[in-house]
Amino acid sequence: MKKYEGYLIDLDGTLYRGSEMIPDAVEFIKRLQQAERRYLYLTNNSSRLPEQVAERLRAFGFPAKPEQVYTSALATANYLKEELSSPYVYVIGEEGLKRAIEEAGCTLTENNPEVVVVGIDRQFTYEKMKKASLFIRQGAQLIGSNPDKALPTEIGLLPGAGSLIAAIATATGVKPLIIGKPEPIILRYALEKLGSSPENTLIIGDNLETDILAGVNSQIDTLLVYSGVTTPEMYEHSSISATYQVASLSEWTI
Amino acid sequence: MKKYEGYLIDLDGTLYRGSEMIPDAVEFIKRLQQAERRYLYLTNNSSRLPEQVAERLRAFGFPAKPEQVYTSALATANYLKEELSSPYVYVIGEEGLKRAIEEAGCTLTENNPEVVVVGIDRQFTYEKMKKASLFIRQGAQLIGSNPDKALPTEIGLLPGAGSLIAAIATATGVKPLIIGKPEPIILRYALEKLGSSPENTLIIGDNLETDILAGVNSQIDTLLVYSGVTTPEMYEHSSISATYQVASLSEWTI
Repeated sequence: MKKYEGYLIDLDGTLYRGSEMIPDAVEFIKRLQQAERRYLYLTNNSSRLPEQVAERLRAFGFPAKPEQVYTSALATANYLKEELSSPYVYVIGEEGLKRAIEEAGCTLTENNPEVVVVGIDRQFTYEKMKKASLFIRQGAQLIGSNPDKALPTEIGLLPGAGSLIAAIATATGVKPLIIGKPEPIILRYALEKLGSSPENTLIIGDNLETDILAGVNSQIDTLLVYSGVTTPEMYEHSSISATYQVASLSEWTI
Repeated sequence: MKKYEGYLIDLDGTLYRGSEMIPDAVEFIKRLQQAERRYLYLTNNSSRLPEQVAERLRAFGFPAKPEQVYTSALATANYLKEELSSPYVYVIGEEGLKRAIEEAGCTLTENNPEVVVVGIDRQFTYEKMKKASLFIRQGAQLIGSNPDKALPTEIGLLPGAGSLIAAIATATGVKPLIIGKPEPIILRYALEKLGSSPENTLIIGDNLETDILAGVNSQIDTLLVYSGVTTPEMYEHSSISATYQVASLSEWTI
């Protein structure tokens, strides 16, 4: 098996499941540390700040600093800064997304924004949909932080950012630009932050349609781990191919 | 030109435009009355009660009684009663939809419903999306009152029922059953109420994707009127064919 310099590692389903930690995953991250490999925790969840994500990881026993966390919120903010020169933005989203966008020098506004950004927002209302629709029909660009249709929680699968984006895309007839996995934008920024090339990096995740497809879309090798949403049977019937598959991260030699 | 016994007539864009009445349309309805033709006012809008729709029509000068109004709310309620024996229903919608469903003998509930009905709801929230998603994942059927993606209003095009339905369909991965135009269900019930056969009925409307497609889908002749959202140029580029077209209803001989 090839040796990789850099690792991009998914969180939920890969390192933990809801509130349950995965012991083999903690051991795996400790091995990465000892071997002095570069790694980033890479998540499509835009709701939390990197500090909050790192704290949650540490509570599970993972060594994690805020600067080792890269979220779709940070990637969206980076895109707004680098490609759109920190525009005026109307945000449908939670703290992690709003804060990241403000820290990228953008102005949050409800008055004539150049861009509408949509992420998960558990305070979503018709009023917000209406504002977003009118801004987009007046010419604002529609950007979605991540395409996840549903979020696994203790009470079941709840609507994800992708379903809010679908509502606004349907209301306006506008196709959104999506930043998070499996799209190439978040991968490009994550690799830059990691300081690693696509050839020398491995993406690890449990989700075929986000983690593994991200690798396929950006020509980065992938390791599918059967600790989350994908079963070996689902993988057999899927058209998405992972470079490697393991039942547990304990099987992976760094 | 063929003579028709029954008429199914769209409202917004056909009889009035927002708050502006269309004088030729008032004359046309009066001619229908004098000729003793059967007609129904047929609308995808599920928010208002038939009494409220009739009142609005009378305010514009149209002769209109509540029993001459057929809405997607009434068709949805009728479907629930006739096809699903008045089940327990969770409704995302406004007064017109909730009242029609209750009057069809259904019980509105937030506890283990058999059906989730989604229509326009200007009090739509994430909390409602979440409940609907969980009910559908537990096996409830998803029914949409009407597929309209956007609603024309004085301040611009606002999100319609179709965009709320898209959010819930995306969150659950479930394809909704749609009742309103252009689907056949509303047309079947409207013809029953009118007491007219498909061959002897004409659908009049301004919208290719709802009114005219409804006729195409149910083999009913259609009259496209250029007083609303469709221009002759748009019609030329469309794949949907109307039986007849007029600039104004004054051109139509009953």
